[in-house]
Amino acid sequence: MNRYEQLANILGGRIEQGLYPVGQRLPSVRMLSSEHGVSVSTVQQAYRVLEDRLLVEARPKSGYFVSASKPQAALPAVCRTPQRPVDISQWEPVLALINSRINPAVIVFGGGTPDISPASLKPLTRALARMAQRQDLSTLGYDSIDGSKILRDQIARLMIDSGSHMGAENLVITTGCHEALSIAIRSVCQVGDIVAVDSPSFHGAMQTLKGFGMKALEIPTDPVTGISLEALEMALEQWPIKAIQLTPNCNNPLGYNMPDDRKRALLRLAQAYDIAIIEDDVYGDLAYQYPRPRTITSFDDDGRVLLCSSFSKTLAPGLRIGWIAPGRYRDRAIHMKYIGTGATATLPQLAIADFIRQGDYLIHLRRMRYQYQQNLCLITDWVREYFPAGVRVSRPQGGFMLWVELDEKMDTQRLNRLLEPENIHIAMGSIFSASGKYRNCLRLNYAQLDSQIHKPAIKRMGELIHQLMANS
Amino acid sequence: MNRYEQLANILGGRIEQGLYPVGQRLPSVRMLSSEHGVSVSTVQQAYRVLEDRLLVEARPKSGYFVSASKPQAALPAVCRTPQRPVDISQWEPVLALINSRINPAVIVFGGGTPDISPASLKPLTRALARMAQRQDLSTLGYDSIDGSKILRDQIARLMIDSGSHMGAENLVITTGCHEALSIAIRSVCQVGDIVAVDSPSFHGAMQTLKGFGMKALEIPTDPVTGISLEALEMALEQWPIKAIQLTPNCNNPLGYNMPDDRKRALLRLAQAYDIAIIEDDVYGDLAYQYPRPRTITSFDDDGRVLLCSSFSKTLAPGLRIGWIAPGRYRDRAIHMKYIGTGATATLPQLAIADFIRQGDYLIHLRRMRYQYQQNLCLITDWVREYFPAGVRVSRPQGGFMLWVELDEKMDTQRLNRLLEPENIHIAMGSIFSASGKYRNCLRLNYAQLDSQIHKPAIKRMGELIHQLMANS
Ligand SMILES: Cc1ncc(COP(=O)(O)O)c(C=O)c1O
Ligand SMILES: Cc1ncc(COP(=O)(O)O)c(C=O)c1O
Repeated sequence: MNRYEQLANILGGRIEQGLYPVGQRLPSVRMLSSEHGVSVSTVQQAYRVLEDRLLVEARPKSGYFVSASKPQAALPAVCRTPQRPVDISQWEPVLALINSRINPAVIVFGGGTPDISPASLKPLTRALARMAQRQDLSTLGYDSIDGSKILRDQIARLMIDSGSHMGAENLVITTGCHEALSIAIRSVCQVGDIVAVDSPSFHGAMQTLKGFGMKALEIPTDPVTGISLEALEMALEQWPIKAIQLTPNCNNPLGYNMPDDRKRALLRLAQAYDIAIIEDDVYGDLAYQYPRPRTITSFDDDGRVLLCSSFSKTLAPGLRIGWIAPGRYRDRAIHMKYIGTGATATLPQLAIADFIRQGDYLIHLRRMRYQYQQNLCLITDWVREYFPAGVRVSRPQGGFMLWVELDEKMDTQRLNRLLEPENIHIAMGSIFSASGKYRNCLRLNYAQLDSQIHKPAIKRMGELIHQLMANS
Repeated sequence: MNRYEQLANILGGRIEQGLYPVGQRLPSVRMLSSEHGVSVSTVQQAYRVLEDRLLVEARPKSGYFVSASKPQAALPAVCRTPQRPVDISQWEPVLALINSRINPAVIVFGGGTPDISPASLKPLTRALARMAQRQDLSTLGYDSIDGSKILRDQIARLMIDSGSHMGAENLVITTGCHEALSIAIRSVCQVGDIVAVDSPSFHGAMQTLKGFGMKALEIPTDPVTGISLEALEMALEQWPIKAIQLTPNCNNPLGYNMPDDRKRALLRLAQAYDIAIIEDDVYGDLAYQYPRPRTITSFDDDGRVLLCSSFSKTLAPGLRIGWIAPGRYRDRAIHMKYIGTGATATLPQLAIADFIRQGDYLIHLRRMRYQYQQNLCLITDWVREYFPAGVRVSRPQGGFMLWVELDEKMDTQRLNRLLEPENIHIAMGSIFSASGKYRNCLRLNYAQLDSQIHKPAIKRMGELIHQLMANS
């Protein structure tokens, strides 16, 4: 392949993938020439190839633009889920996943850790260090059960960006989003209850349902618009569903933002059937769009949405600081908080509150959103370059997770076994389903990419996938 | 009253209270003279009064000793508990208790906070500050689900003092003892199960049973030897009990250490009926005796004891670092840990591990044990001085909690209401019972006593008790 053909393939892949929206102006010839280390005429030849493929249009004196008629890369399919509540399986592979994330020799694509290395996080570690010196009850004593008021005030202020106007008294600080989800589920459900979930869905929330004895009803979910309201309504007709648990913004693992009208429609459904919504917004602040998308909570007018979130994805997961806005379930949520962990740790709350108050949180967010968006281009390029032609990848609108769908015959558990001796680590698709679906899918974390390390790893992954395909 | 009579009353009270054991040499005349600011002859007169009361014996050339025939102060009574499993009540007063502990204007006798001000804690805050500067995955990333190996190694080493020889792989770090108890209960019990508890019992553990839908069967408990094995065996005969939850060392609220032979006998009972024991050892390292008492866990040879503990009482509760040794229930405990909070915060684990490794933990413990034992003398003196004559108080063998039993007619909820405008805060006895018993009891925290502040507060409490008694 010529250099200009290579470049055309990369750019074409990004356009088909939707990384440059229709009508957007593409990078200038000069920029691409310096970015990719090729001559101006090579870039021009590449753009001509893309014009021939009807992906771009040249506009005189303005440059190149994404063509309105561009073909779209195929998205991951909407899965047929079992149309009944199931007992959740998959604990062993989830355990394997969380156990493997701390070996420094391993190239981790499977974990949920953000990039914690940027300098924009420095003010936070400095605040932690400064406050840790204080030997008093505000840092070492028991906090109040709902958490530090000064942190709750800051979170309430940040929540305005997601369309919510609530006071600090409506928030309860938790030990990460895990505890928020755990509290939410225990606040609205009993053993044996049925909970509807988006599918694929965050394994942690599903394991929580499993651990507390609830059943999951997986609802087919579109990789662009989110949970199918039609399928959900049918399920609500048929089953005594107690709650809906989902991640409507920067979905894990699919990456979509559910459109506002669908969020409203979902809320109306919940009202009609008088059930609760457990909304996970843990990646919401990492949406690439500005302003960030609204939460379902922000439309809620009768307190039936329990919002769960944390600073684990935006700042650092080791702090274990999250929150729940439990709406009308507050009394029960406080009891559940008390019996789960008692009060939340004091010191990290104070340090984070300081970090937000100083404006450093928004600076850090801006930095990370930009990096994650850049990394999305890189990893998409690599996957399209090295994985078999039929591969389908998601189009994340935020966060740092890519969902990859391989040929139906592929089993990512087998892939995983081959990757282990190579010290490469992925999240298998099956853990994102209550019933072990998505065996041919995998999730890749692109928070921190180094072309020297991660590109060869994706290449090796592609080779092994080709090999598995050939043998099957 | 003369000065020498006053002094005789204080010393006599301490002896009757068991604060100086039989045969122990009492403080010298010279020491008491300087401690109490009275003349040598006043002390000599006081000792003569005590000889007349048969509390002390003078031995030529050796000094004064506690007489073997000394009368004993009455202990709190063993309570008649309901002889059937009950649904646990008392959440509202527990909530009121935990909510009130953060108002700095209030003199807090009701909370569970240790003294976090001593200089011996400085190396810990320094370690926290130093490690907080490190911006890497070891402090900010997700930890492994069972917690930091270097902390588990240190805890395993400390546990040798309680007679346990187990490897770090048998421990799981938790978000305080609360989470350890919550994990233990969820690991062995289902909704509707019956759990036997010592009575009075730690309200947090009982609220956890309540929140997860279990019933409590309160077993009468002796203020010196602990849970009645006879009553427990009868209950085991009669009810399908799933587990026994208790605090055998430095019991909260009664303060006893269960004798070793009774610990062994309890384990044999659990083996005979094939049930689990959930052992709370959160105050165990604060036992006044050396070496510290053994845990039931240390006698366990078939993994049926789940040991729960934390650094909340020995170091500082705001750190929220505890652990569970779940024995044979490890797999389930790990699942319960994951769905409760995910991993535990990283930074405080590293700082505590460092603190222990440097030997600072044992130095701090020695300091605190001494202080708490001294404070026990003070608060016992004050209670005996200001409370009505019939008052019965516990004889704590460790920790920093005094249990006070008032006249049967007293209702400490009414006392609490009178104390509120005085900004004095106690823990009402009723929260230590699943069925609202112990209305005439209260618990006092003596971790940090200042004679200028706490003595007048106890005095005022005594006046209000007298007043309530007169009106009843
Ligand atoms: C959607 C989602 N919710 C919640 C969590 C857990 O967040 P935390 O680490 O704050 O408990 C994760 C992290 O993996 C996640 O992806
Ligand atoms: C007997 C007992 N167990 C457990 C706890 C809770 O400990 P932690 O603060 O570590 O959750 C307490 C504290 O009040 C207690 O008294």
